[in-house]
Amino acid sequence: MAVYTDITEVELGDFLRHYDVGGLLSYKGIAEGSENSNFLLHTSSASFILTIYEKRVDEADLPFFLGLMEHLAGKGVSCPLPVHQRDGAVIGRLAGKPAALITFLEGLSLRRPDAESCREVGKALGELHVASTDFALSRPNALAMDGWRTLWAGARDRAHEVEPSLTAELDEEFRSLAESWPNALPAGVIHADLFPDNVFFLEGKLSGLIDFYFACNDFYAYDLSIGLNAWCFEKDGSFNQTKSRALLAGYQSVRPLSAAEREALPTLCRGSALRFLLTRLYDWLTIPDGPLVQKRDPLEYISKLRFHRQISSASEYGLS
Amino acid sequence: MAVYTDITEVELGDFLRHYDVGGLLSYKGIAEGSENSNFLLHTSSASFILTIYEKRVDEADLPFFLGLMEHLAGKGVSCPLPVHQRDGAVIGRLAGKPAALITFLEGLSLRRPDAESCREVGKALGELHVASTDFALSRPNALAMDGWRTLWAGARDRAHEVEPSLTAELDEEFRSLAESWPNALPAGVIHADLFPDNVFFLEGKLSGLIDFYFACNDFYAYDLSIGLNAWCFEKDGSFNQTKSRALLAGYQSVRPLSAAEREALPTLCRGSALRFLLTRLYDWLTIPDGPLVQKRDPLEYISKLRFHRQISSASEYGLS
Repeated sequence: MAVYTDITEVELGDFLRHYDVGGLLSYKGIAEGSENSNFLLHTSSASFILTIYEKRVDEADLPFFLGLMEHLAGKGVSCPLPVHQRDGAVIGRLAGKPAALITFLEGLSLRRPDAESCREVGKALGELHVASTDFALSRPNALAMDGWRTLWAGARDRAHEVEPSLTAELDEEFRSLAESWPNALPAGVIHADLFPDNVFFLEGKLSGLIDFYFACNDFYAYDLSIGLNAWCFEKDGSFNQTKSRALLAGYQSVRPLSAAEREALPTLCRGSALRFLLTRLYDWLTIPDGPLVQKRDPLEYISKLRFHRQISSASEYGLS
Repeated sequence: MAVYTDITEVELGDFLRHYDVGGLLSYKGIAEGSENSNFLLHTSSASFILTIYEKRVDEADLPFFLGLMEHLAGKGVSCPLPVHQRDGAVIGRLAGKPAALITFLEGLSLRRPDAESCREVGKALGELHVASTDFALSRPNALAMDGWRTLWAGARDRAHEVEPSLTAELDEEFRSLAESWPNALPAGVIHADLFPDNVFFLEGKLSGLIDFYFACNDFYAYDLSIGLNAWCFEKDGSFNQTKSRALLAGYQSVRPLSAAEREALPTLCRGSALRFLLTRLYDWLTIPDGPLVQKRDPLEYISKLRFHRQISSASEYGLS
């Protein structure tokens, strides 16, 4: 939620000369995307997002992220389309950092999604999984079990500051998940971060998906479990089965789940709750406080993790 | 440089129902304006800026600020135009705070203005002074001598942290300015913050002025001195007389300076350098550090203040 890289109109003008996008009318740093610097540009032809990739994004991953957006857009998924430079490149450099220009998607993120929105999100996630099956590139999930262990190693010593019993609880969770984690489920390219911030709606209809910078290869049903965690809990922490039922039904209207995927769902939900718990916990403990720093509360995901732990069957999610 | 107030699409939808601006397509918090929360809105009819006024702006001043913009726009000054609600009001409420919708001005702020840009800025400042002569409202300058004294009282004890000799130097500067400050010069509504951030250009031509939230009544030539400080020094701290000459000529092409104004210019320049020095010093000493906090260096204005102190005649500014 910040603009990290400052750019001048001269640098930006030089950068845009590589693109056929009309004359620059304005650019504003926007408070969006926690990993990169983003600017909303108006040109004489249209609106665009300019993203400057900061340290947390590995430049070697950019062909995957940008290629995926282009692949998905080509398959009819509504997502930002990387704009090619006159010489064909989609990755440029600005202020000494890698940068890309992508089309601007109109739309609003929902803060209070209803069940019908959840159904549309489930359907869009299924469509994304189907549309990416023939995408040529792949990228391992850096935030899978090994990545979680690394985060935990960096946060474990101070986890008691958040909740005294957290250290023992998460040690046990790691042990349990290592035993129960599925090793063969349908897999492919997943979004891996399909939170309400990253889904746009216009007039009640889903209008687009954004922010593919966590996309990677992993189980499709794991992506679905991220969606359940992100969309189907209320602000008070309670699970909303009506929304979950809708999200799962939307997904299955495009890509029905196998018996193995259904059976694994509670375990996958625990895993994805642990994943977001760990990144939040790590940030909570390591990012210095400041007047403009908004850190997300790790406790939200401790509560979600505990919810999933007491689920005995995927039918409790409203899976039909 | 931050969005302070978070709003939901539901609140924003409720707010916009009071306006005849078409359907909302998107809204983005923009990293602009250090005092308020600003959002760039796209609707089916146009682009707008939504400003939510934070604590540092006194709600009682809003009719002055917004009325001034409307007055100036009506006189042909290119500046944002407040949009009226269906019932005629220009000040609404959003997230429990006063808020206004203004038209979005396309244009780019220059980081490296040249002399010709300075000439245009001078001319625009003169036009602003002429256009506001018949504006009905007035607002005292909260950052005039008394305001400077208040800031100094809050920063004086720790001023040595910035530079050991600063306390004595500024005590003496206050004494000297109190003696030499003019008490009768042509006065009226001034912008009071016409920095490069607040002036837009398109294709080399000045396209608009923004951010009237420091506007107040004071000497016109004091506003001009702010312009000299803001536009006519290079990044290395050196004074660029070519730019100063151009800015002053641009101003005088619209509103020639009186003999008294010319004579007072070095003193006014010292005053405005002190004003920005003090606000920066105060922020420097009182705002907690944080990873996203960008505080502006008070030393820049200490150096400008010293430059003006050794000016013996306004002709050294290139005033013809």
